[in-house]
Amino acid sequence: MTAYAEMSRQELLKEQELICQRFEKLRDQKLNLNMARGKPGKAQLDMVSEGLFNIFKTPRDYISDGIDCRNYGEMAGLPAARRLFAELLGCRMEQVFAAGNSSLQLMYDTISKAYTNGLLHSERPWCKEEHVKWLCPVPGYDRHFKITESFGFELVTVPMTENGPDMDAVEAAVRDPQVKGMWNVPKYSNPDGIVYSEETVRRIAALKPAAPDFLLMWDNAYCVHEFEGEFVPFPDILSECAKAGNPDMAFEFASTSKITLPGAGVACFACSQANMDHMKKLMSVQVISFDKMNQQRHVLFLKDKAHTLALMRRHAEILGPKFRCVTDALEKEITPLGIASWQRPKGGYFVSLNAMPGTARRTLDLCKAVGVTMTAAGATFPYGKDPQDSNIRIAPSLPPREELEIAVEVLCTCLRLSALEKILK
Amino acid sequence: MTAYAEMSRQELLKEQELICQRFEKLRDQKLNLNMARGKPGKAQLDMVSEGLFNIFKTPRDYISDGIDCRNYGEMAGLPAARRLFAELLGCRMEQVFAAGNSSLQLMYDTISKAYTNGLLHSERPWCKEEHVKWLCPVPGYDRHFKITESFGFELVTVPMTENGPDMDAVEAAVRDPQVKGMWNVPKYSNPDGIVYSEETVRRIAALKPAAPDFLLMWDNAYCVHEFEGEFVPFPDILSECAKAGNPDMAFEFASTSKITLPGAGVACFACSQANMDHMKKLMSVQVISFDKMNQQRHVLFLKDKAHTLALMRRHAEILGPKFRCVTDALEKEITPLGIASWQRPKGGYFVSLNAMPGTARRTLDLCKAVGVTMTAAGATFPYGKDPQDSNIRIAPSLPPREELEIAVEVLCTCLRLSALEKILK
Repeated sequence: MTAYAEMSRQELLKEQELICQRFEKLRDQKLNLNMARGKPGKAQLDMVSEGLFNIFKTPRDYISDGIDCRNYGEMAGLPAARRLFAELLGCRMEQVFAAGNSSLQLMYDTISKAYTNGLLHSERPWCKEEHVKWLCPVPGYDRHFKITESFGFELVTVPMTENGPDMDAVEAAVRDPQVKGMWNVPKYSNPDGIVYSEETVRRIAALKPAAPDFLLMWDNAYCVHEFEGEFVPFPDILSECAKAGNPDMAFEFASTSKITLPGAGVACFACSQANMDHMKKLMSVQVISFDKMNQQRHVLFLKDKAHTLALMRRHAEILGPKFRCVTDALEKEITPLGIASWQRPKGGYFVSLNAMPGTARRTLDLCKAVGVTMTAAGATFPYGKDPQDSNIRIAPSLPPREELEIAVEVLCTCLRLSALEKILK
Repeated sequence: MTAYAEMSRQELLKEQELICQRFEKLRDQKLNLNMARGKPGKAQLDMVSEGLFNIFKTPRDYISDGIDCRNYGEMAGLPAARRLFAELLGCRMEQVFAAGNSSLQLMYDTISKAYTNGLLHSERPWCKEEHVKWLCPVPGYDRHFKITESFGFELVTVPMTENGPDMDAVEAAVRDPQVKGMWNVPKYSNPDGIVYSEETVRRIAALKPAAPDFLLMWDNAYCVHEFEGEFVPFPDILSECAKAGNPDMAFEFASTSKITLPGAGVACFACSQANMDHMKKLMSVQVISFDKMNQQRHVLFLKDKAHTLALMRRHAEILGPKFRCVTDALEKEITPLGIASWQRPKGGYFVSLNAMPGTARRTLDLCKAVGVTMTAAGATFPYGKDPQDSNIRIAPSLPPREELEIAVEVLCTCLRLSALEKILK
């Protein structure tokens, strides 16, 4: 195979004809495949569900540290659930608030409370600010961007590097007092799968934002989610911030959505003691207590970090081959053509691919026409607008292996077709 | 027994001496009893928990209407859960949004979204309004009042009558465009246990508020919660509002917290189709999906309205005697003295007692001193301030029968003591 850049017009036209034929053939199969979202596949659900839902054997199992999980109380969550998350995240139990089924909801609520009531160090609720800006490393997670967009903040992009966000850009940006916060998925970032380097984490923890209530949103969604190789230890952002003199800057989030079950797991946030006191006061207005029975179910099922990591290795046995299926196919078929680049992540739920500029939307439209749904073009950028029209997020977790192989064949075909259209135009 | 009002000073002093002795004796028992919150008792939890938590027998039980409850999706809840709530509330399934474990959280979120984004008919988000007023029938539910207080609204009290809120006062109040909404617990109101009359419901549905986005908060917390007598049918507020030309005025709320388990149940809201579309758009920013496994658990356990009402009769067998224990003791000991009045509710979770004005706080302080915790004085009024210092909320559900008897003895003793102090001062 020759790189497209080195082909003659003649050769490119011939290639286009061949790929068109392949495209037609795929379309004739009337496929209906989905690589749009980071949804675990059925094999993962089956692996977890039986053990999880038959965990209560005797009435004693309803009691945790003397607390009857079946009644109101313990707004900040079962101590045992808080201990479990503290061990997973490397922070202290008192810093953890164990809540309901959704970390996204906790993130939304944190920002919503900043907007309606203000954070610990806010001079006023953010709804009373003239203008709020927010830092968004790109490519990033569309649901994060949507939250801050829904409150009317101006989303300011920061480029991602292989070590995390471009810290020179971040350090410069936070000198603006209107910049009130920043999104982060620090380990196996969504979608790049990048692990922030220790230096990046240190520089983030040591930021000197002009806003006294700068909010570092630390979505540690993939804290134990390696699908290749051993568990990778990662610095605890809360102690890093405390060491750097920013004890109240960070709110960390995690959930068991991709440890046990998506949408039926337990989520938490972690923060400084002062932030915890502030948030508890605000949250006591909103909720009596979260579902402690589901917390207890998870405590009994996951037990501790070692046991959780053993479960994650079983997830990896299912997920690893799916990711390799995608990256191997891309390497084999796309690398020689020089029309796209991508990371080869070792954890998380995505492969982020950069297609030839100006071809991402067209590629995904072509995929759609063949029956393969992918994350919408532009989704990894604020306001859904990728200035390069290049980034494509691949989520290989949901389809079974045999469907995945076809889906990737479709993707490769459509990448080639849109690149050829672009070059030949 | 003679009414205190008819006793001579001599007789009152002698009575005081006797009651003081009784008080000392009770204090010597070093009690630790709680009638503060509407928490179900252990017998109720035991009745529910085994069946509820061993409900999944085969992998087919994870599937509802073809939906795998173990994965993301169906933000508005399982169709089967929405159908169940629709049957309980007497509305249509499409009007129901089945969510997480807390109706309080849904109420908070509804008002929070009015504040941050605005409701369907809002001219602007409420955070951009100069001043927001809110109608609070009193006595009422402290957690309701706290929500609207936390957004800085001015809480305007409306007196309760035996048929619900004083509708002349409500109709007059809503002519003020700053009045943006009203709290309601329409069936077995918290704390009075009053069931709004049909005329009250009709007049509420036909309100002509000056605010185009007036929000009728309809917390139907005790929709099937009779503990005495048969199930009492109740008008569907959504169709009443639609008939009266106010289709988008009401948001109704309910949960299974006191049908299955407090904090581990399923909550819902119900509203017009137009409101549903508006809320879905806003909520899709906040959450991917709620815990459908818990929804499915409840669908399989509760089945339908008839089966749910049968379960409620078993709750009634436990709760009824507890309520009678309280009201019988009050009638026997307090009625002849003429120092307090109360309702005799047939459902809900509370008995609301009006002590001699100026004695509620003192009564509860005395109870506390003997080791009996009750809802704080003033809690049933906005800002925790009962202008009469008279209302006391009794929650008889949590203590076992034998503890309850002592707790009520304590309450009667303290009511008498504080009344005597007041009269003799």
